[in-house]
Amino acid sequence: MNSSELRRIILDKGLARLGDAYINFIYSLALSEVEGAPTGVKVSDRILAEAARSSGLRSLLPKRSGRNGAANAVEALLVYAWDRKLMRSEEAVEILKSNPDPKESFTHLIGLIFERAQLQP
Amino acid sequence: MNSSELRRIILDKGLARLGDAYINFIYSLALSEVEGAPTGVKVSDRILAEAARSSGLRSLLPKRSGRNGAANAVEALLVYAWDRKLMRSEEAVEILKSNPDPKESFTHLIGLIFERAQLQP
Repeated sequence: MNSSELRRIILDKGLARLGDAYINFIYSLALSEVEGAPTGVKVSDRILAEAARSSGLRSLLPKRSGRNGAANAVEALLVYAWDRKLMRSEEAVEILKSNPDPKESFTHLIGLIFERAQLQP
Repeated sequence: MNSSELRRIILDKGLARLGDAYINFIYSLALSEVEGAPTGVKVSDRILAEAARSSGLRSLLPKRSGRNGAANAVEALLVYAWDRKLMRSEEAVEILKSNPDPKESFTHLIGLIFERAQLQP
């Protein structure tokens, strides 16, 4: 994947909407396993935007992009990686479980996807 | 599964929260495939409550349960069935894709889970 293809993915609004549903599901699964009882949670744009910044993904977005645009980019990238089999949902859940700070674990997920897609943010 | 175990499942609020995330994801996947482009959608309580009624699931709930309680029951049952491998997410997506009326396709899903768990609502 080259950087113009990556930009197209992270700016795709439909992919961000699907990714929103994907992320809420895998994060709810991770939290359910950590807590030992089923639960559901919506991952905030704030957390995803922080992960976009610390992973370098944010730097690929237009400068005017706000918190919502940065969160959308993470949502789109994660579900794209799942769809293209760059990262299975089970692996994403394990990584989300392994670190209680979701900003750090989402940063970790984005970094792994960059590596596997041979991307340098 | 007997009917008291089923009642415990469909009244479990944590399971309903996890199921809410699960249903939004699989329904978004189905809609993305039907439309030929990624998209995301939140399934309304109204649709899920109608499926609870037409499948017979509603009759297992306390009489005072409202629309939200009926929708929660569907959410809890579907993710329970996924977790216990009574229905894979891929199969649920195929069924949701096969009928443009989500009330009918969710009713179909609930009926299949009843059969596989050897339940009679």
